[in-house]
Amino acid sequence: MTSLNRKNLKAWLGEAVSMADRSRELILESVRTGFEHTLKDDGTFVTDVDTSVETALRARILESFPEHGIIGEELNDVNPDADFVWTIDPIDGTQSFRHRIPLYGTIISLLHHDIPVLGVIDLPALGIRCSGALGEGAFCGDEQLRIEDLGDDQAIEREIIAAGERKQFVGIGKEYVFDEIMHAHPSVRTYCDCFGHVMALLGSVGAMVDFNLHVWDSAATEVLVKEAGGKHVRLFEDRRGGRDVRYDVVFGKPRVVDWLLERIR
Amino acid sequence: MTSLNRKNLKAWLGEAVSMADRSRELILESVRTGFEHTLKDDGTFVTDVDTSVETALRARILESFPEHGIIGEELNDVNPDADFVWTIDPIDGTQSFRHRIPLYGTIISLLHHDIPVLGVIDLPALGIRCSGALGEGAFCGDEQLRIEDLGDDQAIEREIIAAGERKQFVGIGKEYVFDEIMHAHPSVRTYCDCFGHVMALLGSVGAMVDFNLHVWDSAATEVLVKEAGGKHVRLFEDRRGGRDVRYDVVFGKPRVVDWLLERIR
Repeated sequence: MTSLNRKNLKAWLGEAVSMADRSRELILESVRTGFEHTLKDDGTFVTDVDTSVETALRARILESFPEHGIIGEELNDVNPDADFVWTIDPIDGTQSFRHRIPLYGTIISLLHHDIPVLGVIDLPALGIRCSGALGEGAFCGDEQLRIEDLGDDQAIEREIIAAGERKQFVGIGKEYVFDEIMHAHPSVRTYCDCFGHVMALLGSVGAMVDFNLHVWDSAATEVLVKEAGGKHVRLFEDRRGGRDVRYDVVFGKPRVVDWLLERIR
Repeated sequence: MTSLNRKNLKAWLGEAVSMADRSRELILESVRTGFEHTLKDDGTFVTDVDTSVETALRARILESFPEHGIIGEELNDVNPDADFVWTIDPIDGTQSFRHRIPLYGTIISLLHHDIPVLGVIDLPALGIRCSGALGEGAFCGDEQLRIEDLGDDQAIEREIIAAGERKQFVGIGKEYVFDEIMHAHPSVRTYCDCFGHVMALLGSVGAMVDFNLHVWDSAATEVLVKEAGGKHVRLFEDRRGGRDVRYDVVFGKPRVVDWLLERIR
């Protein structure tokens, strides 16, 4: 199971979907029974659910794919220079989760030499899951996702634009990008984290502008948007790969992405 | 059924909850089967679902409470100077609904001489409903809502603040309020429409700043927030009542509301 071919991709995607089943189960159980949170060194919170979900998913990967690497948000890297590396964000949107806002989710992806080849985004509280792999299409449940472009630029103002939270932009001195978009379009909404990503995949928002992401936040979306026929642009390139890179991305319907890029660049 | 007493309030709330059952049924059916939208004179969209839900709810009110008035978003006033007037927003967040973003809902309230005495906010796609009446408490499902205040102002920065969309503020020349809040707090999210209101009722966001609302957007929230022990402030007072008034409101945990008011005024 170490070469990139259709048969392996399908098998790996099946395993990723099964991992998302497990994470959904663990997360919904913790919502019922309660959970603890602690402050991390970087000033953000982590809950015991983040850690227990990531531990469970890592155990599955280590058992099924001992030769693959793992980069996850809450625990140390495993073999991060392997040809194939899994990325895990056990709860993307921990702040929402902690406040019981139902717009958080689990993100799983697989990289082949830093290129995302499959992705799963699961929103447990909404019962929505997007999944797909290179050349295999992107799906929401059984429905194949097709991000339809707009017929003309006039229609852009009737779209909704999703953005990450302003503090993501402030953290890297790029709040002017957030403010510019907020002023340029009448309906910009801070649908941060994977909820915004899924809304872009479903075509519910025209595009999303999300800055200062880690690989575990962004890899699944990249492959899913492309497989759905949408446009995905990385504004910030860094060839190092791994845990230390940050990604500034814009993705969604091609015309809306282009319109946003004109305002950002 | 024309005097304000506990027995009548309970009966009316029961009827409002039953109306919300019906609207949820109609809305979820239309999500499955599809719906049409048209542009209104005010530049916003209406779907055939908005109209059919409002028509169905009005029929229930006219039958059960022929002496009460009705003010609803999509249809003409009925007896708006009656002692008791029902307000209906069949789909609050039509823009979200039209784009299949699951953060819309139905709002029903009853006014007694312009004072909200009961309210129901139903989020069909999330399966969440808040309801309550004057002196009867506010509930989400079976759970009584208690908006807990923060122990001190230090904790405010770890809260999430909900805001309406910037265009609501732009429309009345008050975009400086939106921008001020967006700059003053690290986690301001445009959780517009009744989704933000429900998040404030559940204590998931510290408070919400929502401007330029109609009575059908705001009346239910006012009684529910107060019954849940939260603080609800109208910044913009207009004694005329009815369809033509707009409300600028801030509501949620008392310390967070006060902190926001200091920045807005």
